[in-house]
Amino acid sequence: MAVLGLGLIGGSLLLRLAADQASSPGSPGSIGYDADPETRAAVAQRLGPSAVAPDLAAAVDGADLVVLAVPLPAVPIVVAALRDVGYRGLLTDVTSVKEPVRAIVTAELPDARWVGGHPMAGKEASGFDVADPELLAGCAWALCLDNGTALADWLDVARWVLGLGGRVTPLTAIEHDAAVARISHLPHLVAAALTTGAAAEPVGPAALGLAAGSFRDATRVAATRAALTAAMCGGNAAALITELDSLVERLEEARELLTTTDPVSALTGWLETARAIRHEWPPHGAETRTPLTRHDLLALGRAGGWLTELHADAATAVLPKSVHPPT
Amino acid sequence: MAVLGLGLIGGSLLLRLAADQASSPGSPGSIGYDADPETRAAVAQRLGPSAVAPDLAAAVDGADLVVLAVPLPAVPIVVAALRDVGYRGLLTDVTSVKEPVRAIVTAELPDARWVGGHPMAGKEASGFDVADPELLAGCAWALCLDNGTALADWLDVARWVLGLGGRVTPLTAIEHDAAVARISHLPHLVAAALTTGAAAEPVGPAALGLAAGSFRDATRVAATRAALTAAMCGGNAAALITELDSLVERLEEARELLTTTDPVSALTGWLETARAIRHEWPPHGAETRTPLTRHDLLALGRAGGWLTELHADAATAVLPKSVHPPT
Repeated sequence: MAVLGLGLIGGSLLLRLAADQASSPGSPGSIGYDADPETRAAVAQRLGPSAVAPDLAAAVDGADLVVLAVPLPAVPIVVAALRDVGYRGLLTDVTSVKEPVRAIVTAELPDARWVGGHPMAGKEASGFDVADPELLAGCAWALCLDNGTALADWLDVARWVLGLGGRVTPLTAIEHDAAVARISHLPHLVAAALTTGAAAEPVGPAALGLAAGSFRDATRVAATRAALTAAMCGGNAAALITELDSLVERLEEARELLTTTDPVSALTGWLETARAIRHEWPPHGAETRTPLTRHDLLALGRAGGWLTELHADAATAVLPKSVHPPT
Repeated sequence: MAVLGLGLIGGSLLLRLAADQASSPGSPGSIGYDADPETRAAVAQRLGPSAVAPDLAAAVDGADLVVLAVPLPAVPIVVAALRDVGYRGLLTDVTSVKEPVRAIVTAELPDARWVGGHPMAGKEASGFDVADPELLAGCAWALCLDNGTALADWLDVARWVLGLGGRVTPLTAIEHDAAVARISHLPHLVAAALTTGAAAEPVGPAALGLAAGSFRDATRVAATRAALTAAMCGGNAAALITELDSLVERLEEARELLTTTDPVSALTGWLETARAIRHEWPPHGAETRTPLTRHDLLALGRAGGWLTELHADAATAVLPKSVHPPT
């Protein structure tokens, strides 16, 4: 198993794989590679020199699974390098946007068996320094099941993610990108806008001095390295614009309610819709079994469900209580 | 000392005052009152029957300081009750909006010596059940210093807040309301809009299933009881509309950048402005001394500073490093 890119996510993954191997020596070995020599040195110091390859070719040589864990702007470079060394095996990635990765891999590395992935885990800090072997434990992990994905490959990667303790959500790349635009990329943009707005004249310094819990949480991810947030938002621009427009429409609704003669009553109903949804989150639901067909797996993912265990002919899954979408 | 209204904030305050009294029997006594008999029973069970008054008149009888801790819609009722019992002493409140409280008190209880206050503490849950004697420890606590406020009264209340471990920020009621519109009320509306939007068709269930840390924090306060959020937002409608419009303008800026040929580079600078501000938050700064004049105290609050200690002729204060407002 080769992990290419050893920042927060790739580094956390390599730490976890190394821990698994230490506790169960029969499990498959793993090796990491990062283009940055200082990162490689830090990883070697923490996990030993054999945990890091000196170059990409050495990392992927003989690997059954290659995990791309570089930010989106570096994906074309690493995919080209994989093409140059003739890699044709199973390939997954942990990038926060899936459709652009699908396009790059399909064009540049058509012989690799790519199954796009996205573990929903992160921190506002980045880099191997803050990597944590527990970061991915129990996290929701989207795995793309597109028309071009071989079901057998998808199940192989799903089995690997389940082994890491992830919750596997089957979705198409486009569905994934629409979902994360609203629950990750949009909150990142909003956090930045709230932060900049808080500091603006007038009353900026006083506002920042009084700001407490609601500001702290609403803006936490605004502390993320700007280049990382820009890469994920910019890489999903079309879906994000759709979500931005919906948000602005909802805020204009609230504005309208604030101008009525009884804004408190008017806002109560508008806020109660959100409260009821937030109260039921994170989703919980009943255990079920899902046949291992493309159709059934995607139906599960679209309903907000996830796999918890794979068997020979079916999967154990959780199907959340349906949330009634607001009208 | 009488605390009127024993929900999250009033209850936490009464618990703290009772603990102070238990550890230092010479300190002034405190008593609470709540219009809800079940809440009074719960407080009596926790703190003993003498901690709760059977009615408002008994609570304020002989009090040196009355703390109004009811939600904004109940303020006119309690102020009228205070007028009916002829209360003329020092009065503060912990309501999240100050200008409407000022208007009510000025009109209905002109003889009381009101100093509006707002401790910046809260939880998404409400009621005495979740009250916590530590809730207010170390919190920023705005105290209104308006033209109608006697400086001696303001200093008395400031001394009391400092004794509770609060950080006192002097501001006018209007400045306070503008500041909290952007750092508290606006984040509450945005949290609701993000939550409702996440559940909307299409991909609502899948989005909620994948949602992780950035969604969790961005929407935490959307779980607050709708009537409470509506009361604070509706009670500060004019200031909140101004902030909503600024936010929408900033989001439209981001939308514009997403449509450029290189959205990643374009967004990086926009995000970096926010990152730099958020990185410096919460504010920290150098200790300084402030003369006890209206002018100097307000200048401190407007610069984002706060009092930490009161002396006979000056206060020890913290003056944060200036944050350069974005252009």
